Amino acid sequence: MQPPAVLAIHGGAGPASPDETDGGAARWPGQAAGLGAALRAGLAVLADGGPALEAVIAAVMVLEDDEHWNAGRGSALTAAGTVEMDAAVADGGDRRIGGVACVTGVRHPVLAARAVMEDGRHVLLSGAGAEAFAREAGLAFEAPEWFIIERRRGALADWLAGAGGGTVGAVARDRDGHLAAATSTGGRNGQLPGRIGDSPIPGAGTWADNAGCAVSATGIGEAFLRAAFAHEVDARLRLEGVDLATACQEALAAVTAAGGNGGCIAVTGDGPPVMPFTTELMHRGWAEVGGSLWVAARPGPLERLETE
Amino acid sequence: MQPPAVLAIHGGAGPASPDETDGGAARWPGQAAGLGAALRAGLAVLADGGPALEAVIAAVMVLEDDEHWNAGRGSALTAAGTVEMDAAVADGGDRRIGGVACVTGVRHPVLAARAVMEDGRHVLLSGAGAEAFAREAGLAFEAPEWFIIERRRGALADWLAGAGGGTVGAVARDRDGHLAAATSTGGRNGQLPGRIGDSPIPGAGTWADNAGCAVSATGIGEAFLRAAFAHEVDARLRLEGVDLATACQEALAAVTAAGGNGGCIAVTGDGPPVMPFTTELMHRGWAEVGGSLWVAARPGPLERLETE
Repeated sequence: MQPPAVLAIHGGAGPASPDETDGGAARWPGQAAGLGAALRAGLAVLADGGPALEAVIAAVMVLEDDEHWNAGRGSALTAAGTVEMDAAVADGGDRRIGGVACVTGVRHPVLAARAVMEDGRHVLLSGAGAEAFAREAGLAFEAPEWFIIERRRGALADWLAGAGGGTVGAVARDRDGHLAAATSTGGRNGQLPGRIGDSPIPGAGTWADNAGCAVSATGIGEAFLRAAFAHEVDARLRLEGVDLATACQEALAAVTAAGGNGGCIAVTGDGPPVMPFTTELMHRGWAEVGGSLWVAARPGPLERLETE
Repeated sequence: MQPPAVLAIHGGAGPASPDETDGGAARWPGQAAGLGAALRAGLAVLADGGPALEAVIAAVMVLEDDEHWNAGRGSALTAAGTVEMDAAVADGGDRRIGGVACVTGVRHPVLAARAVMEDGRHVLLSGAGAEAFAREAGLAFEAPEWFIIERRRGALADWLAGAGGGTVGAVARDRDGHLAAATSTGGRNGQLPGRIGDSPIPGAGTWADNAGCAVSATGIGEAFLRAAFAHEVDARLRLEGVDLATACQEALAAVTAAGGNGGCIAVTGDGPPVMPFTTELMHRGWAEVGGSLWVAARPGPLERLETE
């Protein structure tokens, strides 16, 4: 019997909110509801027998529009006070992948990444060239101010030297066993203009191969780049022959060795997703088609979201 | 006994010059001399007991200034007729890596990549942000026209839909057994502005780990990105336990499966470098400290350069 279609999402890994005295607990109900909305959007695709690729994109689009997360609206600010976003999508069926880096104004960077992938000429486009490509593809744009929320302005000073977090992502397995991954981020607060993290980079923050696994990562992007993280997960699964949880743990150890921390969500052609992290928090959730929605931020068991 | 210090370089893989009736044979003496000059620059560092990192940078700087190659002066032109260059350096000792993408005006993109790596805040910078960073780092700039040579203008129309090639790179092992890699490119003729290929991406076009290997790749960058090529070489060596030549062959097969071709140069902590390719040509050369310089473009045995 074909394993059930499944979707997992994340809203970033990082320390327990350094900008709030309650550790961010007051924000959790809203974040949990946001994770639930993203899960439902992706599950609606999978329940209709739709492809994993469309499911991860649908989930990430909801998270990009939700200002709780560091992607789309609500993105982190660069050292210049601007928003520069990165995103990627990966289709495990034919190992196609597309990404955009340092784009401004594109409402849904994940759609720009898909447009790059489907166009097929290139894998990765950046900056003004990527924006021109997205306009040509007919994607929606918003004014630069639309992306900037007050909390990020306040956070900029606190976070200038600090950790990132809040990147969003999704991995899915559809009814036909195809895998897909998507990741979208506003980068790190206070990053230099032009900085590209792991999120849009094939094999670093995003990867999908039906023969291996689908992975979306979050954390200190520089360390994930230095560890070639997502491809390391796939390589350990495929070449070392360990299980998915072990592969993720070993690849996260390489991230630690590279001076960073974070987490990931990952899924193979069988079994539930895994969602390990080495930070205090990783906002995350998952569900099977027809099953309960499970979400959490702290380590330990997930909580079941009430059915709407 | 410590294995000898060694340097390998490439000047790109691709078809036998489609823009010339003699298959490019008339250009070979000049190209061979250029490869020799780059080898000598890197060997001078290694002969003094200098680090592999400085050797690969010295060799790539010579190739960037040499208009035979698609890097620095002589870079390919985008569809907009502009030059946008990518480069990366990787130090296998501490697995640091740095890259720049889509930079214009920086005379030696490989030095900008090193500056990013040594700064340490980020791994990858692109576009105007990368250029501002390079200016801040005191690097030399040239006017946009300095990079554009007449041959590229003529080649643009012919190559618009075609293959790349001419990327440069180097890998080295120094007297202390440290490994390093560097890659620099003008991208693909007729590429969309903002396109980023495999060269500056950790684990795609460039990788170095003393515990594994150093790799610099060249070819159809999109396929190397989709194959996570350089990290796949390292992973097969490390996790599958095959030798370096086999690891490169297997990783190049993944590039073929991803719809592209090309080649690489790679070296481990012991033995000579390997230089496989799946294209008609790969301009390449290598030498041990104190030994002969070997160069070739076509498959088969290399030719010894006359001592100057």
